[in-house]
Amino acid sequence: VAQNFTANVLLAVGAVPSMTVAPEEIADFAGSAQGLLVNLGTFDRERRKATERAVETVRREKLPWLLDPVFIDRVPQRLSFTRVLLGRGVAALRLNRAEFAALAGSQPTRHSVAAFAHEHGVVVGLSGETDIVTDGDRFAAIANGHPLMAKVTAMGCAVSAVATACLALEPDAWRATAAALAIAGVAGEIAAARAEGPGSFAVAILDAFHNLDGDSLMTRARVDYQA
Amino acid sequence: VAQNFTANVLLAVGAVPSMTVAPEEIADFAGSAQGLLVNLGTFDRERRKATERAVETVRREKLPWLLDPVFIDRVPQRLSFTRVLLGRGVAALRLNRAEFAALAGSQPTRHSVAAFAHEHGVVVGLSGETDIVTDGDRFAAIANGHPLMAKVTAMGCAVSAVATACLALEPDAWRATAAALAIAGVAGEIAAARAEGPGSFAVAILDAFHNLDGDSLMTRARVDYQA
Amino acid sequence: VAQNFTANVLLAVGAVPSMTVAPEEIADFAGSAQGLLVNLGTFDRERRKATERAVETVRREKLPWLLDPVFIDRVPQRLSFTRVLLGRGVAALRLNRAEFAALAGSQPTRHSVAAFAHEHGVVVGLSGETDIVTDGDRFAAIANGHPLMAKVTAMGCAVSAVATACLALEPDAWRATAAALAIAGVAGEIAAARAEGPGSFAVAILDAFHNLDGDSLMTRARVDYQA
Repeated sequence: VAQNFTANVLLAVGAVPSMTVAPEEIADFAGSAQGLLVNLGTFDRERRKATERAVETVRREKLPWLLDPVFIDRVPQRLSFTRVLLGRGVAALRLNRAEFAALAGSQPTRHSVAAFAHEHGVVVGLSGETDIVTDGDRFAAIANGHPLMAKVTAMGCAVSAVATACLALEPDAWRATAAALAIAGVAGEIAAARAEGPGSFAVAILDAFHNLDGDSLMTRARVDYQA
Repeated sequence: VAQNFTANVLLAVGAVPSMTVAPEEIADFAGSAQGLLVNLGTFDRERRKATERAVETVRREKLPWLLDPVFIDRVPQRLSFTRVLLGRGVAALRLNRAEFAALAGSQPTRHSVAAFAHEHGVVVGLSGETDIVTDGDRFAAIANGHPLMAKVTAMGCAVSAVATACLALEPDAWRATAAALAIAGVAGEIAAARAEGPGSFAVAILDAFHNLDGDSLMTRARVDYQA
Repeated sequence: VAQNFTANVLLAVGAVPSMTVAPEEIADFAGSAQGLLVNLGTFDRERRKATERAVETVRREKLPWLLDPVFIDRVPQRLSFTRVLLGRGVAALRLNRAEFAALAGSQPTRHSVAAFAHEHGVVVGLSGETDIVTDGDRFAAIANGHPLMAKVTAMGCAVSAVATACLALEPDAWRATAAALAIAGVAGEIAAARAEGPGSFAVAILDAFHNLDGDSLMTRARVDYQA
């Protein structure tokens, strides 16, 4: 479901996406990429196999990878696979509050999210009304975004894809993930100002991702490092 | 093909879509839903298995489900599987004239559609220039819609998805299906008034689905219960 | 990834798309079509089997088919399958410069492209800043298009789909392919004039494909047969 919109978001921000789920060829793709996004939306045996090969390849090549554990709060197989993947060098995890609660066994608070990040050596990017990004030590609360973002399918996946693109450029995974969530939130606000509903919003956010520059981002981002 | 647009239509009308085709996990999804749409577009062994599990689950949970037998007029395997599914408690069938003719063995007329609905204990929602919705006893002819609806892929699937969302809220499947076809037709008219072609139409109908309220619907719907 | 946008482009130009990847039913679809597009994006064993059945069917029915060998420069299995398919009566090949180089073993020049077309008895439609279409004897250089076309996923696939639709109507594969590339380039220019980024561009090009008429096409197309 998510692939078309996600690919267009990546093109809009200047990245070059390759989408594949075929175990036969995923190692070739992953090996020639600069970063890997593993998204568990639509998950089956073939995709599990493809994921394991891709993760193996990027670890060997020392490339960053991000995990978006879609709907692990609803499907037990995805939750158990997420636990397996957590031990394989994932740089960042992007998920919502229900997914975090399923994975960590407790509701997300500043403390529980930081503790989880610390324990697993992973950056957590938690989406919500205010997004939270932490590596266990450093902390950012990002208060951008718009309710229409929840009315477009694959928006979360697209944010994860932007974060993966940032990981490919910025070796500090906490900075990369925080930047991506700020970019997405600001693009969402710009798009909402022009939209008349979720259809025109989805179009406008692609334009906003493409046209956003550093100055606009710094002016509009509402990031709190103390919260 | 249809999933992205269909998911966005469901989000636009206020529903929460989950799309999956994986036999391993479909029972978990179907069991936690309020209604199930079975769409035969892109059909293979895996999807057939997933469909059977999902239908079994929703029957056990007494949840409504709708069948959209895409292209049964062109692919014999889909037609025979549709015959199997008809005996499994389907609440409503949404299809076009060619698909009805393939299934019923006769062209759709008011009489033949009502007879089919009666015989199979199913609501039939027949799309055409004028849509027909009948449970064999009650009848509605809905004269809304716009030709651009046929120029956007997955529009029929999206209408079926809206009907499934209505079935989740309204226990009378005839009323639910008729409401959905009226909603879709009115949204199509609103969108066509703003569109300059099929691209802007697809965007505008998502906005229209999202913004449509009961008053606009009642004012614009052209439903004839006697025709 | 490509299917939704590609289907909408085909509907916009007046064609009737059927998308399927299921080996069980692809022969039924291919046999009732007027042309076949084989796109190697997302490629696995099932799709290879489906492709072989579809090609067999269209050859038997003497229907034209076009090959879009997506990413053969990155995935060896796709390259070797492309070599197999070249011997099976393909009418036209649409690809970019990197894909041509991988297949032909040399950079694309007017000479190397013509030699390849001649050797394999196939029309080559080579996308680039200026598109080249040749059957080995005749030559067209098409200088339409816009950089935003590279910022929308599946744009190349959509152009291939338009070329397949043209092959279904025009028995001369060189004329059909050249017409399709001119149509796509002109539609891209019209769309770019209205777009504010890749999101609105993707919408506007669907409108442009739908609204383009022969006069506008002939006025705007920049085709050089001597270059």
